[in-house]
Order: sequence, then structure tokens, then C-alpha cells
Amino acid sequence: MRVRRRKGAEEHLANHPQFVVSKPEDAKGHWHELFGNNNPIHIEVGSGKGAFITGMAKKHPDINYIGIDLQLSVLSYALDKVIASDCPNVKLLLVDGSSLTDYFENSEVDLMYLNFSDPWPKKRHEKRRLTYKTFLDTYQQILPEKGEIHFKTDNRGLFEYSLASMSQYGMTIKQVWLDLHASDFEGNVMTEYEEKFSNKGQVIYRVEVSFNS
Amino acid sequence: MRVRRRKGAEEHLANHPQFVVSKPEDAKGHWHELFGNNNPIHIEVGSGKGAFITGMAKKHPDINYIGIDLQLSVLSYALDKVIASDCPNVKLLLVDGSSLTDYFENSEVDLMYLNFSDPWPKKRHEKRRLTYKTFLDTYQQILPEKGEIHFKTDNRGLFEYSLASMSQYGMTIKQVWLDLHASDFEGNVMTEYEEKFSNKGQVIYRVEVSFNS
Repeated sequence: MRVRRRKGAEEHLANHPQFVVSKPEDAKGHWHELFGNNNPIHIEVGSGKGAFITGMAKKHPDINYIGIDLQLSVLSYALDKVIASDCPNVKLLLVDGSSLTDYFENSEVDLMYLNFSDPWPKKRHEKRRLTYKTFLDTYQQILPEKGEIHFKTDNRGLFEYSLASMSQYGMTIKQVWLDLHASDFEGNVMTEYEEKFSNKGQVIYRVEVSFNS
Repeated sequence: MRVRRRKGAEEHLANHPQFVVSKPEDAKGHWHELFGNNNPIHIEVGSGKGAFITGMAKKHPDINYIGIDLQLSVLSYALDKVIASDCPNVKLLLVDGSSLTDYFENSEVDLMYLNFSDPWPKKRHEKRRLTYKTFLDTYQQILPEKGEIHFKTDNRGLFEYSLASMSQYGMTIKQVWLDLHASDFEGNVMTEYEEKFSNKGQVIYRVEVSFNS
């Protein structure tokens, strides 16, 4: 998600340390202390403007959510939603998805979400796709044994690529939806993108995959 | 594929022993002799009225094709097409997909096609779907190590089920197409169903999967 630079975004994040973890390296291995409980930790890599992570946090108060994005302005809009929802079980992190092992211990994360990730359609940009094998390597380290990724997108090319990439990595498809909104899937929380594109009649794809070790 | 009983179908098959293998048990381990060459053997389980298998046989004269169906009348229509095409590299087999090991030695088949298989949408009929694990067991025996299945269908439910079933069996997705006719896939040979349903705007799904051993 690309958005225009937002004036004062940096100060906005700095002013809300209860929601934005300013020194994420120090949080590594201490996330349960930061949340003040031992509830499961679910992260969303590429959390955009935060509709999903705040929606999930409201719906599941017994789970801790961390929204991760590498763009300052985008994360500052997510912060607006987090402030408005005032959920104690959601935090935000301004870091890159490729460096997650700097901020999470092995198995510190219980479940991971990827929603409407940048498709990077050009072959020469394959390595930037969040389901490329080097990213999967990183995710596997911070997730438990047989840890799961729940991924949805409207982008057919990215979804096709991701199913093959994750399968070839050795992951197992637990369930797949090729038209999520036409299915009987319950409890779906929409992202900003999802709302916009499904209203235009775009099919939404979803998959739950697990690592094999 | 269900069709009305065709009068004289049995005699029709019996009158063309060069195309229809009448004692398939005897063919086990001898398929290359029957074809009179050592070319690869590709089979289609559920070959219906034969448009795919004859189309492929014409296109790839250096591959031997065997169309398999359990319905007499259906196979007799496929025979009409085989006779008309007069390809020496295609044979037909009137047997059940669950008993393939009775007719093929281990690794005797090089590649397998499943096209527009019966979706059996009711949960209690899961075991009849051609991508249910007991069928995969059978296919693995007659295919070589890392043998492949190429599967296409317009049925979303069956495709979703099959991706998960094959993945959970330990198979690897090599490539997947979520809208085959909108893709740059080359050399597609359409089945009767495919022609009919894609003309109605139905999306065609396709996947190439391989066993891991």
C-alpha cells in the first residue's frame, strides 16, 4: 500500500508508546510482558491502514495482535484506528518483514496473517513478494512447529505464485477458498482493500497453510 | 459424465480391439508392447467422450495415451473420436479408477490427467472424489517417483478440496492456474465440458502436482 507522506506522522507514533513499540529490538523475547498477559500473539505483516488488525483485536480480546508495516505514513493511519478502538490487545511496529527475526524470538509468534500483500508482478521482483522462500524462512523461525500463515488477496497472479511457492517450500495447504465472499467462511474481517475490491466484484482468494516442522 | 445408455455400445467396443483393450488384466506390465514402442505413457482417468485424449494424441504423436472410463456408453462415444482420428498412439480402457493397480505395473504410467472429474459435492461422498487420498494412493503406485498429475476443472468446490487433499497427502504444487483461459498457458486441449462451460464464462482451474516420492 502506497500513500502520500503524512505530515507529523513520526510525532504521532512517538506520542503513543502504549500502541507503537518504538524500540522493537528490545521487545524481542518480551512481547508477553509488553502485553501484560500470556495470550497468543498473532501478527499481520503489511498491516496497511489497520482495519484488519483493529477489527480482529475487537473481535478476539483474548489474542494479542501486532500490526507490522514498513511505511511510516501508513502505520500512522493504522494508529488512528487503534486509538479510536482503544483495544489494549493491539500494538504496531514500524519494521521490514524481512527482518522479523530481529524483533521476535523463535516461536514467539503463534499465527501470522498476510493480507493483500504487494503483488510485485514483474518476475525480476519475485524476491520482494512476501511469500518468496526467503520470507518463508523468516516466518518459520518466529512461528512454532507446524505454525500457520493465513493469507488472502484479490490478486490472482500473487495467489497462484504463493500456492506454488509455499507448497514447494514444504508447507501444507490446510484449506483454500477461491471465492471467499461466496463461501460459508465465518468471522471474516475485511481490510480496506478487500472492502473496496470486493465491492467491484473482484474475487477474494484465501488460504491457510502450515509449516511441516 | 452421465450419458444415456447407447444401444450396441458393447459390440462397438468389441469390434475395435486395436483401440479398446478388452482384457486389461493381461495388459498389466505389457503396455509398451501393446503400443509397439517405448514412448511415455500418459493416462486420463475419466476420459469422458474423448475430446481431450484424441486431441492430445494428435498433437503429441511421440506419447502413448490411454483414456480410462468406467461407463460403457461414454467410452463408446470416445471410441467414435478415436476411430475418426485414427491415431495409433491412443487406446481406451473400460475400468474403474480405483482399480488401476490391476491394470498397470508400478511406474508403468509416466503422467496422469484428471479433467472435469465428478465433483461429488456432498461431504458423505468425499471418498468418491478422484482426488481423495485412497485414489492418490493408487495413482502413486502406477506413477514413477515424483510422478505428476495434471488436473483441471471448472468446479470451484472440487478444486479447493483437491488442492488441500493433494497437499495434505504430501504432494507438491508445481504450478497452478486460477483462470486457465485468461493465462498464457500454451497447448491447452479442451474437453467437451471445458468448451461448453468456458463459453458460458466459467473460470477453468488447473494445477500440476507431483508426488514427493
